Amino acid sequence: MSGSLRVIGLGPGDPALLTAEAAAALEAASDLVGYGPYLARCPERPGQRRHASDNREERARAEHGLRLAAAGHRVALVSGGDAGIFGMASTVFEAIEANPAWAALDIAVLPGLTALAAAGARLGAPFGHDFCAISLSDNLKPWAVIAARLVAAARAGFVMALYNPLSRARPWQLGAAFDLLRRELPGETPIAFARAISRPDEEIRLVRLAEADPAWADMATLVVVGSRESRLVARPAGGAWFYTPRRAESGSVPSESAASPP
Amino acid sequence: MSGSLRVIGLGPGDPALLTAEAAAALEAASDLVGYGPYLARCPERPGQRRHASDNREERARAEHGLRLAAAGHRVALVSGGDAGIFGMASTVFEAIEANPAWAALDIAVLPGLTALAAAGARLGAPFGHDFCAISLSDNLKPWAVIAARLVAAARAGFVMALYNPLSRARPWQLGAAFDLLRRELPGETPIAFARAISRPDEEIRLVRLAEADPAWADMATLVVVGSRESRLVARPAGGAWFYTPRRAESGSVPSESAASPP
Repeated sequence: MSGSLRVIGLGPGDPALLTAEAAAALEAASDLVGYGPYLARCPERPGQRRHASDNREERARAEHGLRLAAAGHRVALVSGGDAGIFGMASTVFEAIEANPAWAALDIAVLPGLTALAAAGARLGAPFGHDFCAISLSDNLKPWAVIAARLVAAARAGFVMALYNPLSRARPWQLGAAFDLLRRELPGETPIAFARAISRPDEEIRLVRLAEADPAWADMATLVVVGSRESRLVARPAGGAWFYTPRRAESGSVPSESAASPP
Repeated sequence: MSGSLRVIGLGPGDPALLTAEAAAALEAASDLVGYGPYLARCPERPGQRRHASDNREERARAEHGLRLAAAGHRVALVSGGDAGIFGMASTVFEAIEANPAWAALDIAVLPGLTALAAAGARLGAPFGHDFCAISLSDNLKPWAVIAARLVAAARAGFVMALYNPLSRARPWQLGAAFDLLRRELPGETPIAFARAISRPDEEIRLVRLAEADPAWADMATLVVVGSRESRLVARPAGGAWFYTPRRAESGSVPSESAASPP
């Protein structure tokens, strides 16, 4: 009897946004491993064992899943969104690199809808042009690295998706990010706070960089920062669509960093 | 009778990677509008009308969908991957901005799995840390903008997903991108050519930046460029997992661009 590990992205929350592949893998698993609130999203199946863990114990959770698979279980290790994007997949490979015996297991990562895809669709098309995704958590990287990436992305004209914008333990980072971005981008740059997209407590706030308030974000929020090219299109019922045109002008990047074509 | 427009991402190709929401919207549509090969992926339903267009006619295709919706049809406008990421959604809002009467229509964007999510899962977890997505097509932006973004992303430590790497009309851009990246990143940086992920002709080639050959890419390929932190973990059956650890060191960005925490 040989075990397996499927690292599964559950998407933003609404079961209608799960892929058929992920739903089938959840159904086929003998053991579900994950952070408690994500396990609670998985349909109950008789005989299936559930192993809930705390949010902070990512490495221990990955190793738990790998040990169960090595013992012959069919394990589904679940993440919100896409497991490969600030989710559990990277942690699994860190654990395998530290214990290469696990590399022989039957392992696959099954993609899911990440927060930026779900939020982007609700807002319009903010990610219609070149974009980046940055986690504002400085638990695993120095703030100076995050700050440098925010500045580089703003100067180069990337739209930004800011994951993990703040938490009780990291209260000042989003405000510091807005301070940096206000030095680089016009005050009228569109910014969206997209919270709990597709879940019952979904909430969207669409403003301009000049008036963005970090207090509007929590751990369930993705913050979307437009580029100089991003636009708002009024909706007759109120509010606006936030989109970034496919076309970009040369003026959107500082000329000293531009290279020439051959 | 009021019409509607649903802008739908079909995902990378395998129907098992479609969301239930997108499948239901395709089923409910009276009219499907899209590039021929994408329409061919949608299940046939009696009575449903299909409007195929050429790949280059994006704006005309968006306007066709909007006109049909304005005439009372339930229109599904389809894109490969995620319609909001280098897909049709941005074009729809460009068309609405030019003709605000269309803003009154019932419009929604339904997210799909974009190429970087599908390719990332197959490869391991290359996008486990901060990343960016850049279209190498210079049809709608100057090459100097693209070049500046490649350099900025490499210097700031972003993993990169390169969309639209080359075509018959744009044969030199990917080679020029590799030349720029080789000046910024170590030759051993992992690079993946992920072609037609989840489709019958799927093909993956995993190499190092020093040996990357643009001839390995075509229009169906996503090119994934690691950061200095990205790693390969050998798989006993051959090949390797490509992943980027969650942790980053301060050395991954040039110090002159780093700002200080408060």
